[in-house]
Amino acid sequence: MTEMNTVEARPRISLEDLREAWLLLDPEDRVYGFRSLDPAEADDFFLSLTTRDQRDLVLHLPVGERRLWLRILPPDDAADLLQDVPEDERAELLAQLDQATQHDVRALLAYAEDDAGGLMNPRFARVRPEMSAEEAISYIRRQIKEQPGSLNYAYVLDADQHLLGVVSFRQLFGMTPESKIKDVMRTSVVTVPEGMDQEEVSRLFAQHHLIAIPVLDERGRMKGVVTADDIVEVVREEATEDIQKIGGTAVLGAPYLQVGIMGMIRRRAGWLSALFLGEMLTATAMTYFQDEIAKAVVLALFLPLVISSGGNSGSQATTLVIRAMALGELRLRDWWRVVRREFFSGLGLGLILGTIGVIRILTWQSIFHTYGSHGIIVAITVGLSLVGVVLWGTLSGSVLPFLLKRLGFDPASASAPFVATFVDVTGLIIYFNVARMIMRGTLL
Amino acid sequence: MTEMNTVEARPRISLEDLREAWLLLDPEDRVYGFRSLDPAEADDFFLSLTTRDQRDLVLHLPVGERRLWLRILPPDDAADLLQDVPEDERAELLAQLDQATQHDVRALLAYAEDDAGGLMNPRFARVRPEMSAEEAISYIRRQIKEQPGSLNYAYVLDADQHLLGVVSFRQLFGMTPESKIKDVMRTSVVTVPEGMDQEEVSRLFAQHHLIAIPVLDERGRMKGVVTADDIVEVVREEATEDIQKIGGTAVLGAPYLQVGIMGMIRRRAGWLSALFLGEMLTATAMTYFQDEIAKAVVLALFLPLVISSGGNSGSQATTLVIRAMALGELRLRDWWRVVRREFFSGLGLGLILGTIGVIRILTWQSIFHTYGSHGIIVAITVGLSLVGVVLWGTLSGSVLPFLLKRLGFDPASASAPFVATFVDVTGLIIYFNVARMIMRGTLL
Repeated sequence: MTEMNTVEARPRISLEDLREAWLLLDPEDRVYGFRSLDPAEADDFFLSLTTRDQRDLVLHLPVGERRLWLRILPPDDAADLLQDVPEDERAELLAQLDQATQHDVRALLAYAEDDAGGLMNPRFARVRPEMSAEEAISYIRRQIKEQPGSLNYAYVLDADQHLLGVVSFRQLFGMTPESKIKDVMRTSVVTVPEGMDQEEVSRLFAQHHLIAIPVLDERGRMKGVVTADDIVEVVREEATEDIQKIGGTAVLGAPYLQVGIMGMIRRRAGWLSALFLGEMLTATAMTYFQDEIAKAVVLALFLPLVISSGGNSGSQATTLVIRAMALGELRLRDWWRVVRREFFSGLGLGLILGTIGVIRILTWQSIFHTYGSHGIIVAITVGLSLVGVVLWGTLSGSVLPFLLKRLGFDPASASAPFVATFVDVTGLIIYFNVARMIMRGTLL
Repeated sequence: MTEMNTVEARPRISLEDLREAWLLLDPEDRVYGFRSLDPAEADDFFLSLTTRDQRDLVLHLPVGERRLWLRILPPDDAADLLQDVPEDERAELLAQLDQATQHDVRALLAYAEDDAGGLMNPRFARVRPEMSAEEAISYIRRQIKEQPGSLNYAYVLDADQHLLGVVSFRQLFGMTPESKIKDVMRTSVVTVPEGMDQEEVSRLFAQHHLIAIPVLDERGRMKGVVTADDIVEVVREEATEDIQKIGGTAVLGAPYLQVGIMGMIRRRAGWLSALFLGEMLTATAMTYFQDEIAKAVVLALFLPLVISSGGNSGSQATTLVIRAMALGELRLRDWWRVVRREFFSGLGLGLILGTIGVIRILTWQSIFHTYGSHGIIVAITVGLSLVGVVLWGTLSGSVLPFLLKRLGFDPASASAPFVATFVDVTGLIIYFNVARMIMRGTLL
């Protein structure tokens, strides 16, 4: 009673304000704001939250209020929510669900979260091939009353739950009442096995413009349906993970503003330190070229320019290849085609940068006499090095994702900073060796 | 007749082989393979192609065969296909469509391709609020016969086409035949205006787990429906564009293997040359520090290590911020919160790398005496520079996307290589100034 009064005394919060402020609110304020919505608004709002926010909100509600919210979720979303709940609280939440849903959710929890099985809704409209349109419609009506589920297609199954074909609701509505399902059903259906990775599943959705794909077990029995609305989130998540890897950080796993400073440093320090240790090889390599630098300080002037050009061209190549792999445009066996293509791209790009570099040095030389009496030799050294380093950067950047994939790692780990670091060390060696060759007898 | 015989003499191609080889085939072989499919297979196959491939295939078919394929596309997909066809051929293709579809397609072509209006299907099931379930179902049946379209929800419109609410087919099926639409319809509906950008639309799909969103004009009249299957492709495309920009190339706009070598070089040379011109400032800056390098060659040894650490930390920060912006997690007005957070992240990361650097130099010094008699001074210089450069890289990387967005550019243009190049130049200045301060009177 006292608590109710306190709550009443605080101002009501509008749906718009709550949405707007949600990311910034702490758990208690979220609960307060959520409870102050009217029931219809609260339903919509709860369903519109991410799985993560749904879970946090439910866990902060008193035990007595949890049931209502868990029960409005379809089984696949309820399973997603429970996936991340600590073991000891999971049983308590499961017990809030009705028997049929509990059963479905337990089955779904047995799948890996990233598999087709973990994404699918186990409830769908079933019909038999020998049914008439009229029978099928009233049969589906009964199914809906018992267990509401996905409703874009009716799936035609035999007695052993094998998938024979699909009928869209559009077709079903358009059929004359007596015509048979088996005469109109489409029999060539894109399906996925339970264990298929969600990235692969999303590729099929994009490729075939589908709204729903049935999931079959290894014996061809239909287990559920994955729908495009779940895939939209999967595609965004996978892209986010790839982008974060390409940028050279560990996957954040949560919205940017929800990761604390310490968590942020932890997720970034690992890769950054690894890259730093790799980059230390530049200092080691440079000690071998100390004499050259001492004799021709001009070499040091162009060092950052030359090695960073290798890094930039490597970043380009690796990013293009990683994305093409993720989209399914490139497979492991395409590596040699890619190397051949990137050889010519790298050579072309190297020649362009080399030419710009030579022009820049000769121009400065003729105007300011910046490089003493050896302008042309410096220009040739830098120009040739650029061709070599850009070619090398491009080839490394394109091969590394294949190599990582072949070794069983995620190709996206061949991040732009990783390739840049690798090319810095090797680019430096190329540069000083070109210099030794060209400058022997003059500057060196 | 002769041609037919020639075609018959060549072997038939299976659907699987055609799918497998598609990317590698030239237009004539694609047409040949496509024509050798049996009719049911060909339908499925055509619908599964990307818009780009559908267009190329149709344009390579003889005029007489085009009509069949254009007519199996729903109006929104037909409009997408025609969008990219040269002006002069577009009229001819439009004429192949039936009157109703021509009308719809013309209306869709007036929208920008990236807008909600350009994505939507203008055909959807309409009902009136005062209808009974039974009336609604038979009314929808009639609509389907006339113009098949999207069928996930029935939209409740008044006489002026204003959207009053939605009823799912699940609800419609579950209603008692006499109950009224207006008593079960959901009135709080997520809608989008015609001109909303597709990236914004896809954000709403992901946020609300929706299968379809109605599109309204500025007077609140319903114009069509965007469905999740189209959004899956949008999300993938947008992510691909962002990833390519983050990697420092122009957007490819086509699958990797379909871009020729010259096209590839053209799309990469622009940014690479721009970065190269920027990186030239390092050579200019270095000329001001020639004396320092000549006096203390040891400074040159750590130059790549120090500036690349700044580049790597900048890549991390910019990538995280760009992605968070694309996901709608960060808005322009959050810039100051981000700067505050990144200040502490950058400082933490700088201290970690600085410590590793100092340990490395002192260890090498005590074992190999690599750095003469000034090991400790070198260690302090490198350590302090690392803290400064990493902090600077992190701040630059996080602020640049906001700056670009504020100026009306795509924040994704603050690519990893762009930030790395910017931080190379400024990092070098930080490094040599720290060196001047610390080493004055000893090495310098």
